[in-house]
Amino acid sequence: MATHRFDPNFTDTVVSAMGDNVNPRFRQLMSSLIRHVHDFARENELTIDEWMAGVQLLNWAGQMSDAKRNEGQLVCDVIGLESLVDEITFKLADEATDAPTATAILGPFFRADTPFRSNGENIVKTVPKDGKGEIAFMNGRVMDFETKKPLVGAVVEVWQASTNGLYEQQDSEQEEFNLRGKFKTDENGLYSFYCLRPTPYPVPDDGPAGKLLKLMDRHPFRPAHIHIIATYDGYRPLTTQIFDRKDPYLTNDSVFAVKDSLIVDFVERKGDPQAGIELNYDVRLVADESKTNGA
Amino acid sequence: MATHRFDPNFTDTVVSAMGDNVNPRFRQLMSSLIRHVHDFARENELTIDEWMAGVQLLNWAGQMSDAKRNEGQLVCDVIGLESLVDEITFKLADEATDAPTATAILGPFFRADTPFRSNGENIVKTVPKDGKGEIAFMNGRVMDFETKKPLVGAVVEVWQASTNGLYEQQDSEQEEFNLRGKFKTDENGLYSFYCLRPTPYPVPDDGPAGKLLKLMDRHPFRPAHIHIIATYDGYRPLTTQIFDRKDPYLTNDSVFAVKDSLIVDFVERKGDPQAGIELNYDVRLVADESKTNGA
Repeated sequence: MATHRFDPNFTDTVVSAMGDNVNPRFRQLMSSLIRHVHDFARENELTIDEWMAGVQLLNWAGQMSDAKRNEGQLVCDVIGLESLVDEITFKLADEATDAPTATAILGPFFRADTPFRSNGENIVKTVPKDGKGEIAFMNGRVMDFETKKPLVGAVVEVWQASTNGLYEQQDSEQEEFNLRGKFKTDENGLYSFYCLRPTPYPVPDDGPAGKLLKLMDRHPFRPAHIHIIATYDGYRPLTTQIFDRKDPYLTNDSVFAVKDSLIVDFVERKGDPQAGIELNYDVRLVADESKTNGA
Repeated sequence: MATHRFDPNFTDTVVSAMGDNVNPRFRQLMSSLIRHVHDFARENELTIDEWMAGVQLLNWAGQMSDAKRNEGQLVCDVIGLESLVDEITFKLADEATDAPTATAILGPFFRADTPFRSNGENIVKTVPKDGKGEIAFMNGRVMDFETKKPLVGAVVEVWQASTNGLYEQQDSEQEEFNLRGKFKTDENGLYSFYCLRPTPYPVPDDGPAGKLLKLMDRHPFRPAHIHIIATYDGYRPLTTQIFDRKDPYLTNDSVFAVKDSLIVDFVERKGDPQAGIELNYDVRLVADESKTNGA
């Protein structure tokens, strides 16, 4: 069956070296991974030098990663892997009629220690000096996607980059937790805050992900977006991003995360001295008992 | 054509995002890698949590790696990848009649800064305290594999683990560069030194490679071996390992590096107060002009 000129038994030897006491799912994943990696090497007659360049690139990703940055994740993102596992994990939810809010990738700039803020608070703690910061009022409801019942006390966590393309942990000029916040929905299921109209930005190009993008002759830009995680007891946690319809990179996101249902429209806001535009955005969560995909 | 239930265009979108100005070989490798990685994810319906566990494992490998240790390489080794790219790279040389010395993997414990020593020197600078250190005299010729002409001034670099299974850079009890050395062949093409009879040892289990081995229910042992790199101007550099025929792990090396032609026999040595056993081992190099595999 081998269509190559290398030892036809080698891959089976490696796979069958696994012992009896292996978790069945782990055995499946490792067997498949080993076969794909070996097929990749044989089909392309991968040389030692090429393989070592790959090893060094992955080691470099780990060396750049810490509690505030996950470069290994970013490397996966630029080859579409995070968006793909997102699609796989949430496939059935996406297929449901009158769907809950679609998912999108977490990205490498999430911070688990983001503080709670009050509804109506402005998350723009450090005003951009470049004059490009346009303040927007964002609000909406968190609801059960089937019953439309508002969910009281649901948590909506948001984060976004500043107009210079940097998240606060990448930028010593920004106050800690600038452009981040967790909000609890009120008695009507409503959340609200002031933020920036998001702007497009390049993913960091100082590491292996940026190097791969250059070698692949691709631009590093992500379309303008706001990250959202919404959670409520008894409901499936939602990780998503919403995208500004006016962004020029909507069709060629460097990490392939855009979905049509996540494109939103900012509109003019009148009579509010704090913000000239607004976005009303409802988040629809799926109850655990609706869970059909086993994810 | 898609045999899965996910977006049938996604992978093509990612591959075709590459621009016009991409090195053709890089385009081939990245296109193939992206397709295999995506197929792996779809075939196994890889979840976000499983993917993230893999990312964290690879980041961990990078974080453990430095000038003295390459854990990303060791992760590849335990799934057979280094041995496979070694086979691929040197396939044609292996196939030649009256073959030059076969190649084997470099392994993660090579040090580029190993010092030169004199022929006949003992590389055992720190004598093992466990009494298991058996001194061996190793010598031989470096020769042109076709003409059998001895190569004068060729460099033979060797390194081996001590009886506790640790290379000197892993073990603060060992003198720096213990059990390592570079030797230049003399006017007859001969090299010689005293070393330890090699002993089997486990690959390091304090990182992701060790974790993978445990999860795969595999032992971590490498059969006893001595690493060799031999170089001579105008000849293809050789990286190999030689294995002691008496080792119990010859048939189940944790990094799959054993080749039959690299198994050697230590024999009794008489009349030398420094060593009770010896190994005569000739290294056969291929002239660059014989190079047929383009590697």
